[in-house]
Formats: sequence, structure tokens, C-alpha cells
Amino acid sequence: MGRWEPDAVGRLREAAMELYLERGFEQTTVAEIASRAGLTARTFFRYFADKREVLFGGSTALQDDMVAAVVAAPDDATPLAAVELALDAAAEMLGGRRDYSRQRHAVISANGELQERELIKMAMLSIAMADALRGRGVPTAEASLAAETGVAVFRVGWERWITEPKNRKLETIFGETFDQLRTMTS
Amino acid sequence: MGRWEPDAVGRLREAAMELYLERGFEQTTVAEIASRAGLTARTFFRYFADKREVLFGGSTALQDDMVAAVVAAPDDATPLAAVELALDAAAEMLGGRRDYSRQRHAVISANGELQERELIKMAMLSIAMADALRGRGVPTAEASLAAETGVAVFRVGWERWITEPKNRKLETIFGETFDQLRTMTS
Repeated sequence: MGRWEPDAVGRLREAAMELYLERGFEQTTVAEIASRAGLTARTFFRYFADKREVLFGGSTALQDDMVAAVVAAPDDATPLAAVELALDAAAEMLGGRRDYSRQRHAVISANGELQERELIKMAMLSIAMADALRGRGVPTAEASLAAETGVAVFRVGWERWITEPKNRKLETIFGETFDQLRTMTS
Repeated sequence: MGRWEPDAVGRLREAAMELYLERGFEQTTVAEIASRAGLTARTFFRYFADKREVLFGGSTALQDDMVAAVVAAPDDATPLAAVELALDAAAEMLGGRRDYSRQRHAVISANGELQERELIKMAMLSIAMADALRGRGVPTAEASLAAETGVAVFRVGWERWITEPKNRKLETIFGETFDQLRTMTS
């Protein structure tokens, strides 16, 4: 094992994002990321399985937090109310990282394979939330509909958050998007 | 060019689906599909670019019909009403093919790569419907939300349609799913 490197993960993530934006994800190597961060490739692989994981390593934690929020929702919460609590949990996790989220979005938008990975991540999130709702006794079709609707609000709200000129709270924008959905369907 | 083969497309599609279900998509070759259909590989390639296109060849027509329905919606239709008309158009195209849809679903569910392709198809459908809504003067975020919500209803309704024991009309189930969404958000 090499010596301990202060904030190696943060430095590697920052270096990777710079390089992905400068020359594209496909054209960037792990060696270059490590070098830019002043670290070795071996250190990189201590924290990330590959250069894609720099972008998607947080997905599991995000999904876990959102599922935990569905599970912990009050007994009398409707399926959609439970999903709204999951989005609040997501906002708490992502809300302080708007610059990073914008950069990440730019990198992913420029690469077909990464776009597919992002779609899969959202589909898995929907399945996981539907499972958690079924665990609360919600019938299958209703659970899927609430989860899919929640993911629709997540996508649209998240994109609004990163593209608006002003940096508003993600939680506020999720709330507005849910309100817009209610108006739209009423 | 070979001689004309009566209903070559239908025979190839049926043969492909049989083989995909029997031995899996990955393990099936174009030569085997053609042979099972009593045709040549050359004939196969006259109609399909590859063995995946047997499953996804209809995607463009489906998307075109759904977008056309959004474009042709009455001027006073709300964004979600226009999306509902798009789902009616989808129901008209897919409604008579429940057995085929069930088989196709079984094949796709068994293969990660095909699942990804299906996710991408739905994402492209959402983008295309949002574009069509923007063409009607709907603001971007509202257009995306209506399109994403429509795709959520499509997914859930379509899965309900193919998994229910009874063969009910797809259009009816889409309508019920929209009603369920309205109840859920009210």
C-alpha cells in the first residue's frame, strides 16, 4: 500500500472531470487522471474500479438514501408522498454540488455510452423505489406508477436546477415540479 | 435479387421470436432464423439490418405515430391531453399484437443489452414528444414533464396490459393508468 494521500478521492474526481471536459471521456486515460491529480494510477484504482465509476460511483448511495426515505415515510403517507420524501433525500445529497452536477451533465451528454448508463441508473432507481413501495403494501401497478412519476419529476427538476442561471435549492425545484404535475393532471 | 417470398417479414419475425425464446437472443444466429423460416440469410438482410432489428424495427413507426398525434392534437388541448392522444395512437398500433408483445417482453427481459436498448427507445420517445409539445408553444420544462409523465403511463400501462391474465384493450388500460395518476396527484 502507498502512503496516505490527503483527499485523494476529491483530487482524482476533480482531475477526471477537468480532463473529461477538456478532451472528452473516451480520450482520457486513468494514467492521465492520476498524473493531473499528482497521484499514481495505483492510487486511482484504490478508489475507483474504472474511469466511468468517477461519474457513477455515487449512484448506489443516492439510490440507498432514496429507498430509505420511502421505507421510513409515515405509515399514512400516500405512495406519491413517500416518493416526494425520497426526492427530498436526493436533494439533500445532491443539493450542495450544483457545479459538479453541471460538469457531470456536460460530460455525460457528450457520450452515448454514458447517456445509456445514466438511463439505466434512473431505471434501476425507479425499480428500487417501486419495490420499497410494494414493501409498504402498495399494489404493484400503483407502486410502479408512483415510482416512475417520481423519476419523471426527478429528471425534469434536476435538469431545471442545473440549467437555470440562478442557483436555487434543488428541493424547492422538486417541489415546484411536483406542483406543476398536480396542476397538469387536475 | 431472389424471387419474391410471400410474407417473408412475418415468417422471419415469427421464426426469430421462436428461437429467441427457445435458446436466448445471444445464442441465435441470423442463419438459424432464416433456416427456421425456410428462407435464406440474404432474404433476412433484405428486411432487417441485424437480429436486434427484428425486435426494434417498429420503434421508429411507433414514435412517428405518437409524435404525429401530439402535432395533430386540437389547439386547445393541454400538454397532457396531447400526450394522451399520443398514447391512444400507440394503443392503436400495438393493441392487436398482445401475444407478440408478451413474447418480445420475455426476450428483452432475459438480455441486459436488449433491456438497455428498450430504455433508450423510451428515452428517445420522451424527447421526441417533448420536442413536439415545444413546437405547440409549450414551455420547455412543462413539455418535458408532460412527455416524461406520458412515458411513465406508457410503461406502467403497457406492462399491465401484457401481464394481466385477461386480454383487455390497451387503450382502456392507458386511460385507467392516466386516471390513477390523476387520483394519485390530487
